[in-house]
Amino acid sequence: MNSFGRRYRLTSFGESHGPAIGGVIDGIEPGLAIDLGAVQAELDRRRPGQSTLTTARLEADRLEVLSGVFEGKTLGTPIGFIVRNADQRPGDYDRHALRPSHADYTYLAKYGIRDHRGGGRASARETIARVVAGAFARQALALRGISVHTYVSQVGAVTCDKPYASLDLSLTDTNPVRCPDPEVAARMEAEIRSVQSQGDTLGGVATCVIAGVPAGLGEPVFGKLQSQLAAAMLSINAAKGFDYGMGFDGASGRGSELNDAWRPGFKTATNHSGGIQGGISNGQDIYFRVAFKPVATLMRDIETIDDQGRPVTLPARGRHDPCVLPRAVPIVEAMALMVIYDSLLSQTMSASVPRT
Amino acid sequence: MNSFGRRYRLTSFGESHGPAIGGVIDGIEPGLAIDLGAVQAELDRRRPGQSTLTTARLEADRLEVLSGVFEGKTLGTPIGFIVRNADQRPGDYDRHALRPSHADYTYLAKYGIRDHRGGGRASARETIARVVAGAFARQALALRGISVHTYVSQVGAVTCDKPYASLDLSLTDTNPVRCPDPEVAARMEAEIRSVQSQGDTLGGVATCVIAGVPAGLGEPVFGKLQSQLAAAMLSINAAKGFDYGMGFDGASGRGSELNDAWRPGFKTATNHSGGIQGGISNGQDIYFRVAFKPVATLMRDIETIDDQGRPVTLPARGRHDPCVLPRAVPIVEAMALMVIYDSLLSQTMSASVPRT
Amino acid sequence: MNSFGRRYRLTSFGESHGPAIGGVIDGIEPGLAIDLGAVQAELDRRRPGQSTLTTARLEADRLEVLSGVFEGKTLGTPIGFIVRNADQRPGDYDRHALRPSHADYTYLAKYGIRDHRGGGRASARETIARVVAGAFARQALALRGISVHTYVSQVGAVTCDKPYASLDLSLTDTNPVRCPDPEVAARMEAEIRSVQSQGDTLGGVATCVIAGVPAGLGEPVFGKLQSQLAAAMLSINAAKGFDYGMGFDGASGRGSELNDAWRPGFKTATNHSGGIQGGISNGQDIYFRVAFKPVATLMRDIETIDDQGRPVTLPARGRHDPCVLPRAVPIVEAMALMVIYDSLLSQTMSASVPRT
Amino acid sequence: MNSFGRRYRLTSFGESHGPAIGGVIDGIEPGLAIDLGAVQAELDRRRPGQSTLTTARLEADRLEVLSGVFEGKTLGTPIGFIVRNADQRPGDYDRHALRPSHADYTYLAKYGIRDHRGGGRASARETIARVVAGAFARQALALRGISVHTYVSQVGAVTCDKPYASLDLSLTDTNPVRCPDPEVAARMEAEIRSVQSQGDTLGGVATCVIAGVPAGLGEPVFGKLQSQLAAAMLSINAAKGFDYGMGFDGASGRGSELNDAWRPGFKTATNHSGGIQGGISNGQDIYFRVAFKPVATLMRDIETIDDQGRPVTLPARGRHDPCVLPRAVPIVEAMALMVIYDSLLSQTMSASVPRT
Repeated sequence: MNSFGRRYRLTSFGESHGPAIGGVIDGIEPGLAIDLGAVQAELDRRRPGQSTLTTARLEADRLEVLSGVFEGKTLGTPIGFIVRNADQRPGDYDRHALRPSHADYTYLAKYGIRDHRGGGRASARETIARVVAGAFARQALALRGISVHTYVSQVGAVTCDKPYASLDLSLTDTNPVRCPDPEVAARMEAEIRSVQSQGDTLGGVATCVIAGVPAGLGEPVFGKLQSQLAAAMLSINAAKGFDYGMGFDGASGRGSELNDAWRPGFKTATNHSGGIQGGISNGQDIYFRVAFKPVATLMRDIETIDDQGRPVTLPARGRHDPCVLPRAVPIVEAMALMVIYDSLLSQTMSASVPRT
Repeated sequence: MNSFGRRYRLTSFGESHGPAIGGVIDGIEPGLAIDLGAVQAELDRRRPGQSTLTTARLEADRLEVLSGVFEGKTLGTPIGFIVRNADQRPGDYDRHALRPSHADYTYLAKYGIRDHRGGGRASARETIARVVAGAFARQALALRGISVHTYVSQVGAVTCDKPYASLDLSLTDTNPVRCPDPEVAARMEAEIRSVQSQGDTLGGVATCVIAGVPAGLGEPVFGKLQSQLAAAMLSINAAKGFDYGMGFDGASGRGSELNDAWRPGFKTATNHSGGIQGGISNGQDIYFRVAFKPVATLMRDIETIDDQGRPVTLPARGRHDPCVLPRAVPIVEAMALMVIYDSLLSQTMSASVPRT
Repeated sequence: MNSFGRRYRLTSFGESHGPAIGGVIDGIEPGLAIDLGAVQAELDRRRPGQSTLTTARLEADRLEVLSGVFEGKTLGTPIGFIVRNADQRPGDYDRHALRPSHADYTYLAKYGIRDHRGGGRASARETIARVVAGAFARQALALRGISVHTYVSQVGAVTCDKPYASLDLSLTDTNPVRCPDPEVAARMEAEIRSVQSQGDTLGGVATCVIAGVPAGLGEPVFGKLQSQLAAAMLSINAAKGFDYGMGFDGASGRGSELNDAWRPGFKTATNHSGGIQGGISNGQDIYFRVAFKPVATLMRDIETIDDQGRPVTLPARGRHDPCVLPRAVPIVEAMALMVIYDSLLSQTMSASVPRT
Repeated sequence: MNSFGRRYRLTSFGESHGPAIGGVIDGIEPGLAIDLGAVQAELDRRRPGQSTLTTARLEADRLEVLSGVFEGKTLGTPIGFIVRNADQRPGDYDRHALRPSHADYTYLAKYGIRDHRGGGRASARETIARVVAGAFARQALALRGISVHTYVSQVGAVTCDKPYASLDLSLTDTNPVRCPDPEVAARMEAEIRSVQSQGDTLGGVATCVIAGVPAGLGEPVFGKLQSQLAAAMLSINAAKGFDYGMGFDGASGRGSELNDAWRPGFKTATNHSGGIQGGISNGQDIYFRVAFKPVATLMRDIETIDDQGRPVTLPARGRHDPCVLPRAVPIVEAMALMVIYDSLLSQTMSASVPRT
């Protein structure tokens, strides 16, 4: 299905080379003053062609809101929106060849038909709708002091090992890689350019920090907050893994080292839990990582098969990012924003939690 | 919410020390011959007290099916079932103390009330319902040649590094750790006993392999198969991370190394993708890992706070597993079984995929 | 699917002659003091054998709550419950015959298998779960001054034509027919006994009044309050029609007669709208009618066919109500209670409606 | 929520005087050849200004499909679409006055904000999206021999009493009232013109017949086919009642008269059941009625209150239909088409129903 969220719900549509990408946002609070310029600015962070590290496809990606906002405020009714596709080069794509590690074959297996132009619905252009929905959620969350920040913490073998709390996250957007450590960012950028020059691609890791979430959000059992976040992140193109708090590192530790002791004021001495216990936020920062694979499209000739199973050679062409991480940042943020806002709206109960 | 799945849907209920754990399975195919003994056998794999590596809580965990099965066959109507709780020691639990890295505080923050006995709803006894629903799904999937197998690939610092394809997975249940490599299993067991003797606990990793899934299952965009699997796994108590195929390792690799070349017969030369491309199965094995943290309950006195924020000391007591991994195996399997069966039932379209 | 509601959600299970009927209630508010005796009392209103006007099947219908209630209060976790089936006479039912105007054939057409004993899942015993969920909702709504009252307004040709506002609704349960007009009730009872003596059955109409609903509940467009109520009512066995406010009579009226003029205090001079405008409650009473067909089971021999299409004669037997209306009352109430409570919980927005 | 359906799901958006009405259709089968001209033709049936019996608002209502259809066939991906609003006269509407029997007050009560221009989201222009989704469903159903036909069976006091089977339904669109009995249609038209000349409005009834539905569609218990149809119909603006088969008339009949005897071939001798038994289709025609109230907007000055509760006089103006029935026909059909197609797609099980 093409919908995400329960109370704050995005339904998206659009193929890469069709007329438009768009969506419907259902469930936003009424009476919310909306800065549409800020929504457009989020789209600009996701836009192709914003730096030489990203694909050369040129898209203005101008947002057109068709409903749900009246005289600058949300009505509580659904927000319909579209972004027209402009720079289409369908001739770049072979109608019959199955590209390796793309969704060409699987869409055909599922549907028996596919839009071969640029991956069709499987294209990352689909994430435009997510960024729009995330941007609306960000404005609603900001009123409650909740913020979501994502940065690139790994590109290929170059890692930013400092804990997020020791970084100046305001530096993230000061470089094209979106790593807040300038020295590491420079090495990441060099690594991307090096690999790009070889016609190859790189993966990496994005780290996300959510601050200001009150205790009590999330649902126990199947709707655990980490479960929702994991689903959100693994739904992003090229994502291969998710962990939160101590994450995979916790598998090799001991309980005596990794428990988060309680301190007066219902705060924890450490935050190995990652701000979530039993699926419910505990008031500490929520943080998690998302692993992305290298982009499957290489600037090299590829030996593959066509939809009849016959060998074919795909010449090097098309436009793509050598590394998705820089542009993944606003998408990871958007999904996190949607999950948190949805959890907030799902929280109808007035909890009488003890406070010091 | 306490439901999981779309077409094959489990709704579960029950607190650790309440009268029973149970659930309703909705959406199973009608006319399916069901072996209830095999369902009970899955519960026995999850049962506490099955070896000296697990908690000493004694529960027979006898399944009682109340509807939906008639003369040995499913009716297509919902299957209601319960498992009575028996060995309750509510006196083991302090009504006011907030245990570190447990859900005591967060449930209180969310609901303003909690069942303090053994974690109440947050207890892993809740997973009984999952194992039952998974066991029914396994029987439906077996008819189509689809199998799900999970094993323990890491306990603390002890890892089983061999790829799953080189292991004899039929050995998994031959040792109490549930690692199919006997030599590694022995070291894992020793590690657990060593840590247990110190009153401490260990985390680890479970690896799951799903074989026989036809190409075309899963939904694009928000319902990607990996997204559903990630949500399923992160909903399990103590899970901290999920990755599939190349996973987090893919973040440091290059596209030229990690692409899966197509071979005649619509098979891939390698399977770094992990059997899923664009969110949809491609007919290869699906495999993934789930990281678990060390159990938060230690056999040591704990300094913590109570629900008024006052310091309290919790004496060492209660019953728990020193390492959840052995008993996590049937739970990971159950969640995977539910996801795959649900995807299969969601697949109404007749796909005309080309085949050699 | 066997679930009803979004935020207050009942998932039910059980066949008429299986071990039990039961369900899971998900989404109830935490911390609600619950009177389980009052819940049982609602079941007693629905119970067979409560008067000579109802079926002779003897069922104590004792409620067993298995989770979600702790020390007399709701936990906010799901409430699992069961009611055992006791007085089973499966021998009363022919395994192969298809009874006219029953669900025998359609269940077979849908599932290819059926539980032939007493209609299996299609039996009205399934409504036990509804009554339980409604009874919990009633207690939550009572705290807000919202009440739901249903009475029998028609039995066969005998009608209670007075508007509900002129009736003393507290008299409803003072007679076995559940009509608050004693004189009409007596005629209805006589009519039922007359028809019963002929081995025949009667239909009728139930009228429901919901008082105390604040303005603003319900969802526009597809989730209109009347849409939810209609779905709820038509899901009851034997229901054939629903209308609210002016209802079918409005089809023959004129706008100038049927518009509800606004009065100071945001009250309306009349209430032809039935308390709902644009799908959203306006603060006036909500009222509606539900039409029920005559029970399909007659105390006469029936010529019909079997599941191979061959003619068969079904001898007169089995136990049934000559008219479902008296026992439909608590079921209609239960469904209305669930809809209203669900709408209330779905209402997260703080509306700033002008008030005088 | 602004979504309708489970497997075939429409999510709609748009205010009457905003930029556009639109929606997303999710779940349509892939590979379906689509005639977009036929979809536009359905919109033309719903369009204002199509005859002198309808509102004078002039809207071309041109459909623009933005995704999901490629080279004339459905991709299985979501179909995004918009219809621009053109003939807007926001000046016709008072920002503060609350019109009687409209949704002005209830939207304000729910949201604290409203788009006062032409009812905003509460306008019947929202049904454009329904007609589009219904038109796609019709093409999918036609391939299976399933047809949906609606006609006007009552306008004010003028009724078409003949059973649908004795009417020539192909005549429905030959007159502006959409009643297939020419003589009755003429009287209905005269009645509408008479009432219109008095500045008043009329209600009526639409009758819908669904032919060709195989046995076995629909879900037992809460998803009964009649329950889904009732919810669909009551979600239409101005609808006040729904009944199917014997409907409200069945309340005064007896079981011995109203049971549908089985005949060889699994056909019924009569069809008082209306083609549905136990919530599941039985292979006979499905038929039902929908009651509509008179339009609330009169061509008369109205004494009412404003959003501060102060008395105001609304002068006669605006554009509206004197009777919604003629334009309700395509909307009732659209909703029925969506329900039936959704039920068909929800039917994954291979039933082994016996056939003669």
